[in-house]
Amino acid sequence: MTTGKPSLRVGLIGYAFMGAAHSQAWRTAPHFFDLPLHPELAVLVGRTPDRVAEAAGRLGWAQTETDWHRLLERDDVDLVDVCTPGDTHAEIAIAALEAGKHVLCEKPLANTVAQAQAMTEAATRAAANGVRSMVGFTYRRVPAIGLARRLVAEGRLGDIRHVRAQYLQDWITDPQAPMSWRLEKDKAGSGALGDIGAHIVDLTQYITGQRITGVSGLLETFVEQRPLAASTGSLSGAAGEGVGQVTVDDAAVFLGRFTGGALAVFEATRFALGRKNAIRIEINGSAGSVAFDFEDMNVLHFFDGTEPAETAGFRRIVVTEPEHPYVAAWWPAGHGLGYEHGFTHQVVDLVTAIAKGDDPSPSFADGLQVQRVLDAVERSAADHSTWTEI
Amino acid sequence: MTTGKPSLRVGLIGYAFMGAAHSQAWRTAPHFFDLPLHPELAVLVGRTPDRVAEAAGRLGWAQTETDWHRLLERDDVDLVDVCTPGDTHAEIAIAALEAGKHVLCEKPLANTVAQAQAMTEAATRAAANGVRSMVGFTYRRVPAIGLARRLVAEGRLGDIRHVRAQYLQDWITDPQAPMSWRLEKDKAGSGALGDIGAHIVDLTQYITGQRITGVSGLLETFVEQRPLAASTGSLSGAAGEGVGQVTVDDAAVFLGRFTGGALAVFEATRFALGRKNAIRIEINGSAGSVAFDFEDMNVLHFFDGTEPAETAGFRRIVVTEPEHPYVAAWWPAGHGLGYEHGFTHQVVDLVTAIAKGDDPSPSFADGLQVQRVLDAVERSAADHSTWTEI
Amino acid sequence: MTTGKPSLRVGLIGYAFMGAAHSQAWRTAPHFFDLPLHPELAVLVGRTPDRVAEAAGRLGWAQTETDWHRLLERDDVDLVDVCTPGDTHAEIAIAALEAGKHVLCEKPLANTVAQAQAMTEAATRAAANGVRSMVGFTYRRVPAIGLARRLVAEGRLGDIRHVRAQYLQDWITDPQAPMSWRLEKDKAGSGALGDIGAHIVDLTQYITGQRITGVSGLLETFVEQRPLAASTGSLSGAAGEGVGQVTVDDAAVFLGRFTGGALAVFEATRFALGRKNAIRIEINGSAGSVAFDFEDMNVLHFFDGTEPAETAGFRRIVVTEPEHPYVAAWWPAGHGLGYEHGFTHQVVDLVTAIAKGDDPSPSFADGLQVQRVLDAVERSAADHSTWTEI
Amino acid sequence: MTTGKPSLRVGLIGYAFMGAAHSQAWRTAPHFFDLPLHPELAVLVGRTPDRVAEAAGRLGWAQTETDWHRLLERDDVDLVDVCTPGDTHAEIAIAALEAGKHVLCEKPLANTVAQAQAMTEAATRAAANGVRSMVGFTYRRVPAIGLARRLVAEGRLGDIRHVRAQYLQDWITDPQAPMSWRLEKDKAGSGALGDIGAHIVDLTQYITGQRITGVSGLLETFVEQRPLAASTGSLSGAAGEGVGQVTVDDAAVFLGRFTGGALAVFEATRFALGRKNAIRIEINGSAGSVAFDFEDMNVLHFFDGTEPAETAGFRRIVVTEPEHPYVAAWWPAGHGLGYEHGFTHQVVDLVTAIAKGDDPSPSFADGLQVQRVLDAVERSAADHSTWTEI
Repeated sequence: MTTGKPSLRVGLIGYAFMGAAHSQAWRTAPHFFDLPLHPELAVLVGRTPDRVAEAAGRLGWAQTETDWHRLLERDDVDLVDVCTPGDTHAEIAIAALEAGKHVLCEKPLANTVAQAQAMTEAATRAAANGVRSMVGFTYRRVPAIGLARRLVAEGRLGDIRHVRAQYLQDWITDPQAPMSWRLEKDKAGSGALGDIGAHIVDLTQYITGQRITGVSGLLETFVEQRPLAASTGSLSGAAGEGVGQVTVDDAAVFLGRFTGGALAVFEATRFALGRKNAIRIEINGSAGSVAFDFEDMNVLHFFDGTEPAETAGFRRIVVTEPEHPYVAAWWPAGHGLGYEHGFTHQVVDLVTAIAKGDDPSPSFADGLQVQRVLDAVERSAADHSTWTEI
Repeated sequence: MTTGKPSLRVGLIGYAFMGAAHSQAWRTAPHFFDLPLHPELAVLVGRTPDRVAEAAGRLGWAQTETDWHRLLERDDVDLVDVCTPGDTHAEIAIAALEAGKHVLCEKPLANTVAQAQAMTEAATRAAANGVRSMVGFTYRRVPAIGLARRLVAEGRLGDIRHVRAQYLQDWITDPQAPMSWRLEKDKAGSGALGDIGAHIVDLTQYITGQRITGVSGLLETFVEQRPLAASTGSLSGAAGEGVGQVTVDDAAVFLGRFTGGALAVFEATRFALGRKNAIRIEINGSAGSVAFDFEDMNVLHFFDGTEPAETAGFRRIVVTEPEHPYVAAWWPAGHGLGYEHGFTHQVVDLVTAIAKGDDPSPSFADGLQVQRVLDAVERSAADHSTWTEI
Repeated sequence: MTTGKPSLRVGLIGYAFMGAAHSQAWRTAPHFFDLPLHPELAVLVGRTPDRVAEAAGRLGWAQTETDWHRLLERDDVDLVDVCTPGDTHAEIAIAALEAGKHVLCEKPLANTVAQAQAMTEAATRAAANGVRSMVGFTYRRVPAIGLARRLVAEGRLGDIRHVRAQYLQDWITDPQAPMSWRLEKDKAGSGALGDIGAHIVDLTQYITGQRITGVSGLLETFVEQRPLAASTGSLSGAAGEGVGQVTVDDAAVFLGRFTGGALAVFEATRFALGRKNAIRIEINGSAGSVAFDFEDMNVLHFFDGTEPAETAGFRRIVVTEPEHPYVAAWWPAGHGLGYEHGFTHQVVDLVTAIAKGDDPSPSFADGLQVQRVLDAVERSAADHSTWTEI
Repeated sequence: MTTGKPSLRVGLIGYAFMGAAHSQAWRTAPHFFDLPLHPELAVLVGRTPDRVAEAAGRLGWAQTETDWHRLLERDDVDLVDVCTPGDTHAEIAIAALEAGKHVLCEKPLANTVAQAQAMTEAATRAAANGVRSMVGFTYRRVPAIGLARRLVAEGRLGDIRHVRAQYLQDWITDPQAPMSWRLEKDKAGSGALGDIGAHIVDLTQYITGQRITGVSGLLETFVEQRPLAASTGSLSGAAGEGVGQVTVDDAAVFLGRFTGGALAVFEATRFALGRKNAIRIEINGSAGSVAFDFEDMNVLHFFDGTEPAETAGFRRIVVTEPEHPYVAAWWPAGHGLGYEHGFTHQVVDLVTAIAKGDDPSPSFADGLQVQRVLDAVERSAADHSTWTEI
């Protein structure tokens, strides 16, 4: 693809689930959106030579490296896209920023507040030099979520009274489901809380334009030991025979308050049998309400409290009109988008910000704030669910 | 209606919303169910003579009284049905039981644990004399709820992991909605917590067959002053000009644990704009899940985790088959029931228990246990949401 | 119940499914609605003395007769409610009208156009003498249906372009489901077409305020022979051993045109496995659309085409507000009604019209028009689906 | 992307909506599926040089041509992908096949049966020389549709009794919506019937594995004149001032029969206000039922008639499990696909068939059969809806 536009040369670290989603986004964005810079899939990084070579061929990357430090030394890489487990985010992202590379870092930003704090400081220093950073809360880029935020910003909901948010999965309901790095605290930082709870913390703050000010939390690990699996990738440390210890939460529930006074209820779990990836958010205000479920991701339900009672009702808005965020670039009305489109929209927003010299959003500071909420949930849970300020 | 069956002569105290629902139930039950005793709508009690006379004519009661004490002295009344605000429950119910009358008492059982405790003790003493008592958690008698309980009892859900329950209303979202006795602590005991939160506490305990062992709570009164309304009935003390002070919670959220270890999240509110009477319960177990929403009350969603993944999914069971609880007495499959049918089923179960000499369920002890949960929520909320054992 | 109002003494013929529904309606209406006349459940008619006596006791009728002719001779009966199979409607209804009794006749009005024509003429003659008649299309009285009609009448839908209507049941999907009078042409007139197809013909004409002008039809009997059942009632002629011949349609599909030019698609079947009583109606106009499904009977979906695209969507109106048809007499918002409430509303409208001296609606003429549509469907189906004018 | 696999060099004619969708599919398929041949986006064809050059840059095509005949002369093109209006399909596709190019042709296959017949004959001749052809009914490749077909094939539905299918859009509801080539008979062949009705004819035949044997149809053009739009592309002949004549149907409704005896009801319209791209299919069999709505495209509803009545219900299967058609190549369970994925799956199946030397499906003969059904609908509509055999 010859575009005549300046290139943005990308180096991606990691090629599992997230790496594949990011690759598709980098490839696809310029074909649907008029980007100011042309992304090049320059270098893919993985620890095992033959595996990373195979992945690069499959995912469309021009070259490979087996040590991420090498990426930072290359002059032909402008942006580092970090798709590794959370325990490595801080080291990689800070080094990349210091090497003058823009950074896109998967969520959660880090495994601890201290790491996230250090990353945010590095991001601030880098921004002063025109080096940009973003954390990958891609669900913000689902058009229905963008519409929800817009309605709140326009005052269509009035004062926010209630936030209820659930992220429900069921992939380890079976006690015989094997260990993975996502179940180890030293790799993943936390379990459902950080992996999926982080998303609903970010989304509800994003939609409402408010921050969570305090929480009361409760965590649970229903299944404490699981069989070890055969090695499934270069990043897994939990392969072999016998059983491994689950050191993270299987489920997290917490109450919260938003800056505007709203009451909030959050639930993140991998044990909601029958719910595969159900992100459900409902927000009630004094003038209107919105409801969203990722199982029906192209739809936003909106209740307009100014309608007369006779004809008031939650409107099922099929968020596929040109007026809706990101949609005009895609298909005619009614032709829905899928999971991966959020990643493409993330690329669009990131590339646009870099070209404009703007700080992209969500920033590392946003990621740090989410991390602080997660940390407060853990501290509350460890202290009799006592209310814990952020 | 001449039936040849022994009569059960009923005296009803109160004729507002609940009184009308109970009247319809007493009238209707014998026409659809083969009851062992025939209910007679004998006496209606209210404080204002002309109003109670009008209500008796409209609701189908043979006689009236203006003082509930008189009811207890009458030999021609076998059962006292208490549909007054919560602050009067204890006095009336205890006196009725001591007078040898069976008692059906609306929920919440009382406004305080102490009152509920006294009522439960009175119920125990009365039961020794064959005098029966029941608290009116009618939503237990929605067929879909009965089916949910049956599926849990049969082991179709396995070990319960998650309970999430919401009772969402919006009738005082508008700050100009007037005062009512339901917003005064001395009449109502609490607000959303006791009025509707009590239902989801009872329902989740009923369906799971477990008890809540501890909670962490948060309460909120969004609108602290409201205009006084013109008097709307003999029981309202809040009429007149000016504003009144709201002394109860507008919304209550709390985390909980069940005896089997499940994590629970509860939310009761009168500020969920657009949700009129949405009782939503979802329960996830190790083998299956169920989900219910009273806005679609004839439906239960059931996920059977033993189905192969290819064809697994939440089944939308239209709970109108003869195999379903209570349904065989009504209409053919697909012809749904409404809100008031739960009250009719309550009459059926109560009359049956009285005739058999069984203790009806839910008992005053069940009502007391719910009250203890509500009390723990209030205490937790007053103490930084600290975990509070029941 | 002493009301001081003049009585309307009712005689009901038939006490199966429809008889039970009508009985509940006559009993219940005066307790929720302020009727100008007080209905008395005076006489129940059935052919078998002990059965009709048992039914009268159960359903609340004061007296019984075993010959419907006797009913017409009684001075203490003001209205005859005809709940018998369709082959007897004409004879009974005409005789009753000629005897000066008001008549409520179940649908379909008759088994043939000729019968319906004679009934309509009798109704016209009777009306001149102040004797009223109504045909029992009770689904008109579901509040959501009433709201749909109101929206059309107010012009909220603009010009009607499309009508699609289905009435789906599945109770004889199993070839071993036994014979019943509903499967015999000489008793029932037709099968799915007249039994349930009649409802969607009436409902769509009622909502749109238009008439069907022509049809193209197709009928099918999937299972032509069925086992005979043991006698299940005095009206069944199909009891015994062996098999019986199904002489009616199992399913009917037809295209149609409305007076305003709309295209219509209708489907009535007893073979839609999994659909118990699904009456589904969607109407698209130039300015708005409505959609209804009786499986969620308290809901009407409304699309307002004047909304901006960004927030346009089908509104899920929970039709339980005081502003909605019939609802103010019942429960607070969100407390839904059930199947039988339509019958109660029918009583309300009928009694009101009689007291006012108005002709009730739907009239026998309306029933005749429905019959003409059904007849045209049958004639079209018998003639290569050729377009057949009404 | 260097793959070491043999290339399949593609030439695409047309770059509007369909051209963009096909481009995305050709680009994306090899990154998620292990294809036996590697597609190269070799040549894009359009009539206006600068426009086709712009489109090629945007959509990722290496070279351009402005005359499709040139494409057939090139040795470096293996497959011709025809995304032009229907009136040109026959000429292009036949010439391409005769030039030894594989052909993928958008639906409907042609504007007339005669054209489709000629194309099918050309395809048969070409197949004898190893040249393959396929018609682009991409909705077959939605995973939920594939699962529906699989369930029917496995006998889970038993004998098919009912097929009801709707394709509802609303993009020309407004009488001021401008003319386009899709509203001109000489370009488009027909209106809603061929454009979207073709899809539901194909899908229902595909899912059931049966053919439609006869129809009774009715067509309508609600708005006969529309304003001319400014030219919107090289293929539109309807630009300018004033009004243009709509010469195709706005809506088509028809009854049908399937080979197995099922009754069918079809509806295709561009006037269903509020429905953007609602493809709704429900199929009822003697043992089970399925229901699909493209507005919720990752879901299939399945009713298993062998379940006991107590727990029977339509299962909402989220069709995102590895066991489901095409899904294993994409994301984890619960992460849904979008509209364009069907095109990617089409590429996968076509490339696989070409590599294996199989005839791809759906074939031109399948497209011809659909065309015959559409033609029968038109003939029936022109002859009083008389039943017309296919």
